[in-house]
Amino acid sequence: MKDQLIEKIMEEVMKKVDQPKAEVKAEECKPQQKFCGLTEFVGTAIGDSIGLVIANVDNQLHEAMGLDKKYRSIGILGARTGAGPHILAADEAVKATNTEIIKIELARDTKGGAGHGCLIIFGAEDVSDAKRAVEVALKELDRTFGDVYANDAGHLEFQYTARASYACNKAFNAPLGKAFGLIVGAPAAIGVLIADTAVKAANVDVIGYASPAGGTSFSNEVILFISGDSGAVRQSIIAAREVGVKLLGTLGEEPKPVTVPYI
Amino acid sequence: MKDQLIEKIMEEVMKKVDQPKAEVKAEECKPQQKFCGLTEFVGTAIGDSIGLVIANVDNQLHEAMGLDKKYRSIGILGARTGAGPHILAADEAVKATNTEIIKIELARDTKGGAGHGCLIIFGAEDVSDAKRAVEVALKELDRTFGDVYANDAGHLEFQYTARASYACNKAFNAPLGKAFGLIVGAPAAIGVLIADTAVKAANVDVIGYASPAGGTSFSNEVILFISGDSGAVRQSIIAAREVGVKLLGTLGEEPKPVTVPYI
Amino acid sequence: MKDQLIEKIMEEVMKKVDQPKAEVKAEECKPQQKFCGLTEFVGTAIGDSIGLVIANVDNQLHEAMGLDKKYRSIGILGARTGAGPHILAADEAVKATNTEIIKIELARDTKGGAGHGCLIIFGAEDVSDAKRAVEVALKELDRTFGDVYANDAGHLEFQYTARASYACNKAFNAPLGKAFGLIVGAPAAIGVLIADTAVKAANVDVIGYASPAGGTSFSNEVILFISGDSGAVRQSIIAAREVGVKLLGTLGEEPKPVTVPYI
Repeated sequence: MKDQLIEKIMEEVMKKVDQPKAEVKAEECKPQQKFCGLTEFVGTAIGDSIGLVIANVDNQLHEAMGLDKKYRSIGILGARTGAGPHILAADEAVKATNTEIIKIELARDTKGGAGHGCLIIFGAEDVSDAKRAVEVALKELDRTFGDVYANDAGHLEFQYTARASYACNKAFNAPLGKAFGLIVGAPAAIGVLIADTAVKAANVDVIGYASPAGGTSFSNEVILFISGDSGAVRQSIIAAREVGVKLLGTLGEEPKPVTVPYI
Repeated sequence: MKDQLIEKIMEEVMKKVDQPKAEVKAEECKPQQKFCGLTEFVGTAIGDSIGLVIANVDNQLHEAMGLDKKYRSIGILGARTGAGPHILAADEAVKATNTEIIKIELARDTKGGAGHGCLIIFGAEDVSDAKRAVEVALKELDRTFGDVYANDAGHLEFQYTARASYACNKAFNAPLGKAFGLIVGAPAAIGVLIADTAVKAANVDVIGYASPAGGTSFSNEVILFISGDSGAVRQSIIAAREVGVKLLGTLGEEPKPVTVPYI
Repeated sequence: MKDQLIEKIMEEVMKKVDQPKAEVKAEECKPQQKFCGLTEFVGTAIGDSIGLVIANVDNQLHEAMGLDKKYRSIGILGARTGAGPHILAADEAVKATNTEIIKIELARDTKGGAGHGCLIIFGAEDVSDAKRAVEVALKELDRTFGDVYANDAGHLEFQYTARASYACNKAFNAPLGKAFGLIVGAPAAIGVLIADTAVKAANVDVIGYASPAGGTSFSNEVILFISGDSGAVRQSIIAAREVGVKLLGTLGEEPKPVTVPYI
């Protein structure tokens, strides 16, 4: 009987031991907003993203950063994980506010993953505009992480907008006002194949291609930038996504979307 | 008695809790081949390596990638962990098939480790040649990971070929047809010392040196490329390996080979 | 009663399961010195740091590394985690010995973190000088890691010296003999804000600014280099530190110093 008891207990224990991990993961995905009492703090979001504002950037720093003199107020959006999601979120933010994207920098990051982190700077004449832009972008991140699929071996990312604005234009050379799509595969080998799938699936224009040795910050990604008719861009992305999920799945678990797919 | 029971149970539980980790590690090293039903999929291998082919690369993509027009069919070999093992494996693949190495790109990767991932592209006139090259390379990886030694603090890598072919030539400037050796130490400090050990141990020619600020993708490695008489190259490598294993061991566990040493 | 027993056991078990992690962390922070019997080995320190010397660098390697012919003996200091702490430690080492800093290279590393690893090379005419420099630097690391604050989301780093010497001059362009300060925030967004805080808090000169796209090895950091009156530099750093700890704390646990703060 003692053995049975031990077995039963072990079963219970193993359940408990495994549970906390799942909980931690969920927490990681949706961090509770913490506040810190600083007026410069706007908020945090998925991917260790943080949003900040500076009402009046110090002169010396302004110069050292090489910012346009026009803007004394800046909004700052940065993250350890994610560049595409943040640039697409910033694209919505510039549409919705009186701000301009003045810097997009990509770090090689994702906390040991295969991709980028980012630093995006909005310029504004008024701090309330800068703050509003950062707020909009932080809120959009939940959506723009929707077509990021990941497992332990790598990730896939797909982004789509029916009408590209200034952030997509600055970062990816996307033609303003036209439909734009982003296709990312990591490890990079997968990116090459799904880029091919994408351009064969519909009549789209390739506006850029980035790989570990060019256009990325040495990330292990191949990235395709496409433009064209809105239906065609979507069709392209959906075809690439289907193939990408299968390929990445051969290296590990079935890749799952980080939030809720939107394309 | 209750206390004794608790103790006994705890003992059992701790065993169980510790076990799964070891199992997971073994699995990570030798992933079971998964299939995904796509004709473009060739296979997977150690290091989150994946092999793919495209029979007829789309025109727009072909141009965006800057590929030589001669080759419509490409073989794709990519990995999260490893560049040396893949380049040496690709070297055997070009010897064995009617293909050419048209791209070797190194990402800063290894999933949080100190080294590179890679993207290697074979060009072929016929898709069956491209596929064969990728198959050969994937199979070689088990061997070429044999002299990769790692612990939590870093890694060492040694490669040797009696007769360098086009992949080693393209990636490392190795003279064709001559014996070639590769010596890697990470953190980079260890690489400097074992590079010195290597060149002092035998009469070899230094054909290249790479370090975090030059020749790597900011990896934390120093890499030495040597050429010369086949016996001398091997002797050089063996001397460096002996010292490297001792040094890396001072920062953590005794470094163990990833598969089976071949040099 | 069985249920109560199970509960009590589970409680005990969960305690045990959680405990070992904490122990492991402490061990990681202060590695016990291991020895390896090689005369070239000097020692190890926090951050997977290793110190080595070569009495007489091989001619071919000397040339391949592009070292100044003046120095046949070199001291080597490298690490997986940390660049600022090592450069400040090297600064003390050159003050204390008859050596010169001949190379400072920054890898994108920190084992999946947001920052750099490093490779620093001291040149000396005599091997005992090179060895002494490495010993001094290794010993200083315990102090220079004192104002590194980290949590799972990122890190902050602050360095201060009342009198910058040749290592700070070479790496950061710090004016020799003047007070110098270093302010680092990761993710980079936090770095921008605390850089602004720093320059507004006291009358200091900005001598440099580095960010993911310029001046770093694609790390996810913004780094500010300041110089000036010793009291002002300290005041600047202390203000930035206070804000940085609050901001990084919004993304995770309260950031804790790696060793003991010295500023």
